[in-house]
Amino acid sequence: MTSVCIELEYDGAGFKGWAKQAGLRTVQAELEAALETVLREPVALTVAGRTDTGVHARRQVASFATAAEIPRDLARRANGLGPRDIAITAATAVQDGFDARRDALSRTYRYRLLTRSSSSPFEQGRSLWWPHRVDREALDACARLLPGKHDFTAFTPTQTDHVHFHRTILTAGWSQEGDILSFQVTADAFMRNMVRVLVGTMLDVSSGRGTLSAFEALLKGARRSEAGETAPPHGLYLESVAYDKS
Amino acid sequence: MTSVCIELEYDGAGFKGWAKQAGLRTVQAELEAALETVLREPVALTVAGRTDTGVHARRQVASFATAAEIPRDLARRANGLGPRDIAITAATAVQDGFDARRDALSRTYRYRLLTRSSSSPFEQGRSLWWPHRVDREALDACARLLPGKHDFTAFTPTQTDHVHFHRTILTAGWSQEGDILSFQVTADAFMRNMVRVLVGTMLDVSSGRGTLSAFEALLKGARRSEAGETAPPHGLYLESVAYDKS
Repeated sequence: MTSVCIELEYDGAGFKGWAKQAGLRTVQAELEAALETVLREPVALTVAGRTDTGVHARRQVASFATAAEIPRDLARRANGLGPRDIAITAATAVQDGFDARRDALSRTYRYRLLTRSSSSPFEQGRSLWWPHRVDREALDACARLLPGKHDFTAFTPTQTDHVHFHRTILTAGWSQEGDILSFQVTADAFMRNMVRVLVGTMLDVSSGRGTLSAFEALLKGARRSEAGETAPPHGLYLESVAYDKS
Repeated sequence: MTSVCIELEYDGAGFKGWAKQAGLRTVQAELEAALETVLREPVALTVAGRTDTGVHARRQVASFATAAEIPRDLARRANGLGPRDIAITAATAVQDGFDARRDALSRTYRYRLLTRSSSSPFEQGRSLWWPHRVDREALDACARLLPGKHDFTAFTPTQTDHVHFHRTILTAGWSQEGDILSFQVTADAFMRNMVRVLVGTMLDVSSGRGTLSAFEALLKGARRSEAGETAPPHGLYLESVAYDKS
């Protein structure tokens, strides 16, 4: 058996998220179908970051094991068969047993906001239009509280199959480039909706509807209803996944 | 009469260019309709850079003279009425007699190419996918020949209403940012298709189909058929327009 590592990007607008679901258009289903057509073998993908409906990926990583021979131009051929809203940027045979999910050391997500009074035709579906006042100091103060191990129960839906609610955030910060204000966060792993609820709750602190001390208290575990709204999916991107290079 | 300066951006994909034409969807027609609804007066726009079908604008400038009172929130109200592929970023009353076309000192265009083996869902319609070999030195050598006054007859359609074919290029250069290779050029004025034929012809030099000396000779005036193909419109952006600040 050979392990194959796939790097890909996708525009999440046209997908009901990553994971295969009967009758729904998902990234996994489209990608497996294209790979199976090229390899003439069943393909079962494992993924580093399971994205939800509407969430984008800039550098997602998936893997599968196969007995098929891997053509050198697998990426090009699968791209030719697959839809235009997914692009495989690399497809390479790697050491046997590589698993994109299990071997990932951390995931990085970015949430993008367009902070100007008018929306932009070039940012439709690519960022959250946020023509409101932004308190950058409040946002930065929130982000500084994030690194470390916290109980994120308040930041994921009540109906969940998660068993443990602690996650370790490695880095978190806001940055501005032109009219785009971004929140970037790296963690060992994320729970469902976690980045979007973090963003929604920090925007409450920015607008004065929430306080920094209330935000800090939420990181020690609280009910979902105590945190802010879930920011919409079209501003969120899985940016990258880190692996041990050795 | 008051002169009003409008700054706007648009995604060119849905428009048959800037200029009004009976029965066709154009930027001018959509914008005048939205402004007329707010002002309850006829609006006749003058524009700094008349873009062709499919060409984008990042910071286009238009103007009109009106007897109507200009509300402070004209941009916001016109954006609310206009389509999502146009955004007015500023609408301000300026000194009487301002004319966006006549008063412009120079225009800057950018042509964007995606230079990687796979296309990108985030670059569909926003850049020309160019998975071919690029000879950056050849492109740079071409760009260095451009500043100055030249006869651009070879770089505009044979069927044209231009009378003079000399234009003065102020600056021109190629730059790479990630996978995006851009050609940016500033001139006093441009002829129809001029930037797109320049890019198509420089890409011929890059691929070895044309030579630097042949490119240089074209700048002294030649038939259209001697220059390269017209690069597609979806890679081209009107980036900005310069005015005398005094």
